[in-house]
Amino acid sequence: MLPLGFSMAVANAEFKNRPAPRNDLALVISDEGAVPAAVFTKNLFKAAPVLAAIHNLQDNFKNNTQIRAILINSGQANACTGEKGMKACLETQRMVEQAFDLPLNSILPASTGVIGAHFDMEKWEKAIPKLKESLGKANTEDFAKAIMTTDAFPKFYSKEIEVDGKTVRFAAVAKGAGMICPNMATMLSMIITDAKVVQSEWQEAISYGAEKSFNRISVDGDTSTNDTLFGLASGKSEVQLGLEDLKKHVRQILEELAYLLVKDGEGATKVLCITVEGAKTNQDADAIARTVGHSQLVKTAMYGKDPNWGRIVAAAGRANVDFDPNKMQVILCNIEIFNNGEPTDIDVDAVFLEPFEQRDIELKIILQEGKGRAELKASDLSHAYVSCNADYRT
Amino acid sequence: MLPLGFSMAVANAEFKNRPAPRNDLALVISDEGAVPAAVFTKNLFKAAPVLAAIHNLQDNFKNNTQIRAILINSGQANACTGEKGMKACLETQRMVEQAFDLPLNSILPASTGVIGAHFDMEKWEKAIPKLKESLGKANTEDFAKAIMTTDAFPKFYSKEIEVDGKTVRFAAVAKGAGMICPNMATMLSMIITDAKVVQSEWQEAISYGAEKSFNRISVDGDTSTNDTLFGLASGKSEVQLGLEDLKKHVRQILEELAYLLVKDGEGATKVLCITVEGAKTNQDADAIARTVGHSQLVKTAMYGKDPNWGRIVAAAGRANVDFDPNKMQVILCNIEIFNNGEPTDIDVDAVFLEPFEQRDIELKIILQEGKGRAELKASDLSHAYVSCNADYRT
Repeated sequence: MLPLGFSMAVANAEFKNRPAPRNDLALVISDEGAVPAAVFTKNLFKAAPVLAAIHNLQDNFKNNTQIRAILINSGQANACTGEKGMKACLETQRMVEQAFDLPLNSILPASTGVIGAHFDMEKWEKAIPKLKESLGKANTEDFAKAIMTTDAFPKFYSKEIEVDGKTVRFAAVAKGAGMICPNMATMLSMIITDAKVVQSEWQEAISYGAEKSFNRISVDGDTSTNDTLFGLASGKSEVQLGLEDLKKHVRQILEELAYLLVKDGEGATKVLCITVEGAKTNQDADAIARTVGHSQLVKTAMYGKDPNWGRIVAAAGRANVDFDPNKMQVILCNIEIFNNGEPTDIDVDAVFLEPFEQRDIELKIILQEGKGRAELKASDLSHAYVSCNADYRT
Repeated sequence: MLPLGFSMAVANAEFKNRPAPRNDLALVISDEGAVPAAVFTKNLFKAAPVLAAIHNLQDNFKNNTQIRAILINSGQANACTGEKGMKACLETQRMVEQAFDLPLNSILPASTGVIGAHFDMEKWEKAIPKLKESLGKANTEDFAKAIMTTDAFPKFYSKEIEVDGKTVRFAAVAKGAGMICPNMATMLSMIITDAKVVQSEWQEAISYGAEKSFNRISVDGDTSTNDTLFGLASGKSEVQLGLEDLKKHVRQILEELAYLLVKDGEGATKVLCITVEGAKTNQDADAIARTVGHSQLVKTAMYGKDPNWGRIVAAAGRANVDFDPNKMQVILCNIEIFNNGEPTDIDVDAVFLEPFEQRDIELKIILQEGKGRAELKASDLSHAYVSCNADYRT
């Protein structure tokens, strides 16, 4: 069941280069308005819908109104499309304004797909009546399916909590399989709830949740032009949630979705769960985790089920972090494999045969320099990744 | 013909996991001593031979002696091998000391191959007599072949210049195909000459040459534990070369070798020649060039012969460099493809068909922020790269 106060709609606008019998347009409407929060890509090239959503949110805060809808299409990113792209984006908001009788600036758009292609406005016009027809009939899974691009499966998560005998509902979706990396990715995500929230706390919880989830994963190290995470809280449960509760629940939900993104990393067969401990600072730990998690050599070794600790050690050593290499310890799948500057005395080829059959590979790197700590989930690098990306556009 | 005052030797010690009928041990001897220069990996995990070479060079400068030999083996990196690895490295120097009657600290070692494996000293003992037998019979190409690992072809370059009617000779070799990246790589290289040089100028020319060549290429963004560039100058031509001449010739020679490294990047089918101009600073230009050159999405697009400018633009936009995205221009294969925040009006699929059949792909990114400039040569990312690295160790 959806959080109270929301309705969803999906439609097939046939935006994709190779039209599939699959929806590619999704809308969620907040019946009486909801409190918004958002996190956007840090890429300098921000797509038209990102700029439009930022504009509408600012407008919204100035005028103390509420957000009524989130509109997401897949198949075309409307990124690097200049003035024409901005106008096209506004035009799609106008279509929704008129069809659903909503204030124009209460609609938050998001797009994902090929960069540079312009919207086909005729397809939009044809799709809007279908979207209207669908309103109220779609659920979270339908929504998650409609925003997929190269995703192999839809990513959605719902939960209900009880507070003083009353129920609070959360529903969340995410999409993304490539361009997944530090600081958001070709990643769209949305979390809606019927909790009552204070806007500043809702924003803080959403930012915190993104930092702990989407910003802790890596598929290929590329950050997209369209990354967006939206939050909407309708308040219809009549239950007020405070900052700590919001942070806890948002983080847990987004972590679930972030794991699914890595699991579905383009061509991914493994999820490398990296923990770095004992660095001088958290930043140092983060730099090592990212350097290891982004290393093509580490990623291909994981794909090849090869416990090639030498590549892990070499990646850590080039992370521009100061530490004593002779005090670094590497624990792979709970087995100590490197310590005191050399490999431990284990039969590397034998002991990892079984753990490397699992999807999740735990990697712990322990320095003895301080209390800095970081985690990162990274996918491996496979033949299928190359296939997927060598002919994505065509 | 070798530069005067040098002799080379090669042998097959069968170091590699899968023994091949190929030499894997190489020695160059300076008959009467040569002026050394060197550049080493910046990785915190420095292999035993790197530490030994640094030690011998320091010893050498203290005692004002000269370097007599460079000893390189492939098949085993002797990296992350602890105290035992340091002793094994010293032992190999002792063998050469005795067999060739050279001072122990005048021998510079280098190793390349799998990280972590210990030297098989019996193989070394058996190989040294073969090495001695070969002395004076090997040439630069033989040397280049003996230091190969995953290289598809040997990389060597010789040239002669005339100065006041006298001849000065240079010969250089390099190896490396993976772990190639900023700030040196699993890369060994050596340049020898019979020019007379001042040591400080020779070192400056070697450092400058490395900066302009090996530090301007990228295969996979990984930096190895063993990177080494050695220079030896025997002075036997009796021609003194000054700093500017040395810089010019060393740079030209190392650029030739660096190009070969990228061309032979593991699985590489393309050389992406990136130039960034008009950044606020050279550092900004460098950051953009590296972010684009390391982007898995850009590399796979090049492999797929896909002029996917959106990925280039998105990579530039996430390089943590401040610039106005609406003023950035992208020129691919001499064709303007992006300007004023949007694609230019060309038939992308048609105009790039022919240029993308070439090996070299020229990419120019022009900002309008200042005079910062950088160049980088990057390989593409192919199925063969993944195959090569998913089962390298086994």
